[in-house]
Amino acid sequence: MSRKLTFIPGPVEFSDAVLNAMSTPSQSHSSPEFTQVFQEALKNTRKVFKSTDPETQPFVLSGSGTLGWELVGANLVSRSEAVLVVSTGFFSEHFAEALQVYTDNVDIVGAEVFGDAVKLPAIEAKLKAKSYGVITVTQTDTSSGVLSNVKEIAALVKKVSPNTLIVVDAVCATACEELEFDAWGIDFVLTGSQKALGCPSGLSISYASKRALDKALAHKPVSYYASIPRWLPVMRAFENGSPAYFATPAVQLVHAYNVALKEVLSPSLEERIKAHAEASNKFKNNLESLGVKLVTVSRDVAAHGLTTAYYPDGVDGPTFLSKVRDNGFTLATGIYKDYKDKYFRVGHMGVSAVGERKQELDQCFEAIAKALRESK
Amino acid sequence: MSRKLTFIPGPVEFSDAVLNAMSTPSQSHSSPEFTQVFQEALKNTRKVFKSTDPETQPFVLSGSGTLGWELVGANLVSRSEAVLVVSTGFFSEHFAEALQVYTDNVDIVGAEVFGDAVKLPAIEAKLKAKSYGVITVTQTDTSSGVLSNVKEIAALVKKVSPNTLIVVDAVCATACEELEFDAWGIDFVLTGSQKALGCPSGLSISYASKRALDKALAHKPVSYYASIPRWLPVMRAFENGSPAYFATPAVQLVHAYNVALKEVLSPSLEERIKAHAEASNKFKNNLESLGVKLVTVSRDVAAHGLTTAYYPDGVDGPTFLSKVRDNGFTLATGIYKDYKDKYFRVGHMGVSAVGERKQELDQCFEAIAKALRESK
Repeated sequence: MSRKLTFIPGPVEFSDAVLNAMSTPSQSHSSPEFTQVFQEALKNTRKVFKSTDPETQPFVLSGSGTLGWELVGANLVSRSEAVLVVSTGFFSEHFAEALQVYTDNVDIVGAEVFGDAVKLPAIEAKLKAKSYGVITVTQTDTSSGVLSNVKEIAALVKKVSPNTLIVVDAVCATACEELEFDAWGIDFVLTGSQKALGCPSGLSISYASKRALDKALAHKPVSYYASIPRWLPVMRAFENGSPAYFATPAVQLVHAYNVALKEVLSPSLEERIKAHAEASNKFKNNLESLGVKLVTVSRDVAAHGLTTAYYPDGVDGPTFLSKVRDNGFTLATGIYKDYKDKYFRVGHMGVSAVGERKQELDQCFEAIAKALRESK
Repeated sequence: MSRKLTFIPGPVEFSDAVLNAMSTPSQSHSSPEFTQVFQEALKNTRKVFKSTDPETQPFVLSGSGTLGWELVGANLVSRSEAVLVVSTGFFSEHFAEALQVYTDNVDIVGAEVFGDAVKLPAIEAKLKAKSYGVITVTQTDTSSGVLSNVKEIAALVKKVSPNTLIVVDAVCATACEELEFDAWGIDFVLTGSQKALGCPSGLSISYASKRALDKALAHKPVSYYASIPRWLPVMRAFENGSPAYFATPAVQLVHAYNVALKEVLSPSLEERIKAHAEASNKFKNNLESLGVKLVTVSRDVAAHGLTTAYYPDGVDGPTFLSKVRDNGFTLATGIYKDYKDKYFRVGHMGVSAVGERKQELDQCFEAIAKALRESK
């Protein structure tokens, strides 16, 4: 059986250089060789979030993307503090569920229909009705494929409720959607390694403002592993070129991440993001040309790292996905509540969408088209 | 500059087969290909702990070994519950520190001198004086190189305080020291991937008894990512051959872990553990033949996965370690309080100690001997 190319919304396909870095022979986590690599990775993480403010802080930890939710809950939210979750699907709702472990006061403002973003007036009304310590926005909800306009939401929060910390779940958005950490006044971004960053899963990557760090440092500790105050001196030390210890970092993953970051930043992050938008638009146009209906209600709210689309009438989902797999590509099923059997998801991030193997996305589309013809 | 071989007490050197598995091309975390690998890894994890009880449960999560402490604190310990930490060094004390996030009632029973194990009567006295919900034993404390006799301590707990859950930190002991989960009545073992298991860092591996699972399931949730109840159905599903989702697993690390487990279990775990004891004894004898004094007070309390030894009089630690590095081997500094500048640590686990590259441990000893000659 030949290998299937992975076109789910993460993990995505990885470049040979990244995979080779995964096989880096053993190094001590406090060796000069590793310290130099971790230092470079941390410095380049700043560039991915377009941040130059020296008081911000990147964190690169061993863990799944989900660990990022824990960092928010355990460091930025107190037991009775109100949190507003802007929800566009499964992952937004699960972020809320994670926060409910840490506070009894989580409100959700959702989209009017599945596949749409949350309207600004709905968010504004919530912010005016109650004082929120934290607002969370899932930039791309990987369940719906909806892109939230973080820039507009952040501007609204700054205007209506400036003391509210702005937290962005960018797991499926980092390196394929615009995000300007300093300029937009974001306080915390969490992401994962295995999506548009193009590195295998296993790293939780996050980025904190001074305001977020101050809050975390004043916070009563409720977690050990997910403690920002415990990781902070370690991250600062490595970025300054000295090893430090709290828990053993995932040496090989950090090597791979470092290589992946160079690919993301070459020739420029702006080019990379633009290329994702172009690949996404082309793929969505192609699907629509077959009469397939997208889940996202308009291109304005459609993410560029994945496409979510309804199975056409008369097409059985499992049979269709199985045919696409027979044609060489693994896609993802739907994942949101009652809709989950009605749509499928295609990830198009990284090397197979905008890198040296970008023709694979066209091949993926051909495989989908063939499977659709055979499924009717 | 040629590559330095890593002879610290984890991460250790990895076999080519394990490193190749780290480069496994992308797979969906819910694909049949990955599910089969994860299933096999979970089944083989049972063998590493010599457990056949179907009501026990392995967990393989993305994270550092430290995440294992969090699993204990967040699932097995309540706010006012008394915990007894049997301490033989830095890592035992930090386990206590981690538990103090979750309970205000942590007692430590330590060794009389650095380099010794804790005497059974001292533990017995503590157990008789107070009712402990949990006792923790660090099988090998990687700071001191002390091996605790988990079998004897577990038997004591069963006799004196049978309701106390027995938790073992086996990070530096799994696959190089004996541990019989079922037969000894252990309730929870936590370990990491990067030591004698011979897989790169980034996986937190743990193993729970039915008693521990029952307690975790009845526990008020205080963590999201480190929640045993949330991971339990996912681990069960993968072991039964069906994918399930809570957070994206580290696909490549799980592949590498699966390969590493096969090496550990071949020809048998017993052979592997015996080989570690032999390699350790030989290395310790060799060091002592040079007049080097070990930190561990006797062979009865000396771990087999690493050796801790004092710098001889007149030998400057940093200069010595630098010379050994020039000779091709990375060793580790001391790490325990006032002693940390007085001793060094050598890891001897996995492929370079007992595998196909075991001659490298002899070469490491020669490098140490040469550096000592040059340092005096």
